[in-house]
Amino acid sequence: MSTPAIPMVEIRRGPLAESLHSGHAVICDATGAIVEAWGDPGAVVLPRSSVKMIQALPLIASGAARAHGLGGTQLALACASHEGAPLHVDAVNAWLADLGLGEDDLRCGPQPSRDKALKMAMIRAYEPPCQVHNNCSGKHTGFLTLARHLGAGPEYIDPDHPVQQAVREVTEEVTGAPTQGFGIDGCSAPNFATTMQGTARAMAFFAAAGGQGGALVEAATQLTGAMIAHPEYVAGEGRACTLLMRAAREPLALKTGAEGFFTAILPDRGLGVALKIADGATRASECAIAAILVRLGVLDPAHPDVQRFLNPPLRNRRGIVCGEIRPTPALLGN
Amino acid sequence: MSTPAIPMVEIRRGPLAESLHSGHAVICDATGAIVEAWGDPGAVVLPRSSVKMIQALPLIASGAARAHGLGGTQLALACASHEGAPLHVDAVNAWLADLGLGEDDLRCGPQPSRDKALKMAMIRAYEPPCQVHNNCSGKHTGFLTLARHLGAGPEYIDPDHPVQQAVREVTEEVTGAPTQGFGIDGCSAPNFATTMQGTARAMAFFAAAGGQGGALVEAATQLTGAMIAHPEYVAGEGRACTLLMRAAREPLALKTGAEGFFTAILPDRGLGVALKIADGATRASECAIAAILVRLGVLDPAHPDVQRFLNPPLRNRRGIVCGEIRPTPALLGN
Repeated sequence: MSTPAIPMVEIRRGPLAESLHSGHAVICDATGAIVEAWGDPGAVVLPRSSVKMIQALPLIASGAARAHGLGGTQLALACASHEGAPLHVDAVNAWLADLGLGEDDLRCGPQPSRDKALKMAMIRAYEPPCQVHNNCSGKHTGFLTLARHLGAGPEYIDPDHPVQQAVREVTEEVTGAPTQGFGIDGCSAPNFATTMQGTARAMAFFAAAGGQGGALVEAATQLTGAMIAHPEYVAGEGRACTLLMRAAREPLALKTGAEGFFTAILPDRGLGVALKIADGATRASECAIAAILVRLGVLDPAHPDVQRFLNPPLRNRRGIVCGEIRPTPALLGN
Repeated sequence: MSTPAIPMVEIRRGPLAESLHSGHAVICDATGAIVEAWGDPGAVVLPRSSVKMIQALPLIASGAARAHGLGGTQLALACASHEGAPLHVDAVNAWLADLGLGEDDLRCGPQPSRDKALKMAMIRAYEPPCQVHNNCSGKHTGFLTLARHLGAGPEYIDPDHPVQQAVREVTEEVTGAPTQGFGIDGCSAPNFATTMQGTARAMAFFAAAGGQGGALVEAATQLTGAMIAHPEYVAGEGRACTLLMRAAREPLALKTGAEGFFTAILPDRGLGVALKIADGATRASECAIAAILVRLGVLDPAHPDVQRFLNPPLRNRRGIVCGEIRPTPALLGN
């Protein structure tokens, strides 16, 4: 990376800045022009789950979603890193059943639910987590729907499978550049490498899509609309994506990704945002994306659900406040 | 921090360096002279649980440990961030009972056990975690023992309490400099700020203590010996401190701390090590301390328990290896 990551988030404890998180961020319009940037827009990154809406484009553009009568909550789930709450698990199970498929057809691997009540109930029932609880099970059920529509085989996560080739093609189209290899994600699907600027440009493509203009534009419009209409399906109660989308002063589609990634789609402005915390910390990416959206005026810094990510207190095991997480002045633009 | 943190640990996924952790590290002798350093030796830090052996010095130097007949496992527990396994819980409960005290007298707050079998059993029994399960309960029982010996009050975690004043005094003595304020730790005790160099010097004081020479030297010798003799009490099965102490080619006392800290005491060389990952990540501090100890020849890089921290594979939810954690060449000195 030619330009170093810049300090974005401080961990304060008592009088000290105990830890520091640096990162890269880019705001683009749909032409790929940079509106604002921190760090290196050319940094090659794996945007992980922050680009699930790109991975869902072929599901709609191919006609698979229409042929299977998918609704808004299913499209939101296809873009989701859900917490495996009953809401999500029930919807994915119903979707799989509609396809005549079951949990065994997923290839995302099992993950314990992050819904505390469900997680505790499953432990008490000696019930192991299954693949439907995986935060990516909606994306994978979307992949299965597309594979069915294409008449392709069951190993839909193979990089050479028609589903993943379709994902690669749309990724290159909306980022405006060839992908730069891929990594295998936590859910076993390939995650295509691109630049920070390419990721932001892709988000701006979604932001500017606005309904008409071909299959991809229509698909992007539907996915953005589904995320904004169903924030509880995109993540879950108490999660950053869900709460910050709800708290926003204007339409906002927001998506976290592993290793400190975030993307944001701002339809009213035709802008896209990409953020990567260089060390991969989610506590920092949540703070930094909130700060960037506050700076843009999309979020109100006084809103309690914004505060809880923008500037949360650090409480210890007795509940005593012993520090805070806060964005750096450089990020806020103060 | 005048000198920036230097890249120490890479997170690789597929063909990419997905994330990067930077940090500071210092190796000192007991005079405080720097043998080797990465980043800024003058950086002011909170060494967190990595200095529990300093916090335990007054327990011995005051005569409290001898008066209460404490044994090696209790001294190891006083320096421990244990995982709350039955081994640790039983020992702390017995120690509290010896004092005529109970769990309510602790001030560390409750923390779920990190021993998986015990954690699951407690969830299934609807048994909430208590303060004895807190990783710091041994340190706190040491504080209670000292408070009893000093005839001081029950709020032993107050920064003005004689126990914490004693900790501050010995911290200044072994680091060779005034403390620079304090933060309140996760367990509610004050954690005194010092420099990277001061922390490494303190560890070298322990390393060089060697038995004779006054109350603090004797206390340091006993604590180092207890940690090395009882590595399973310092952390727990599967934990970095326990496994790396056991794997070492020579006597090694090793101690992790929150927010990416590690200290190491090398008695055969009279050297002390302090490490801080700037962003606070434990996955990086475990890799980086292993790398430094490999570089010194203390650890064999081919040992399986060294490999698991030095260069672990990243497996996804289906168990597929999709990347690795590895130290940078700059840290290994290649």
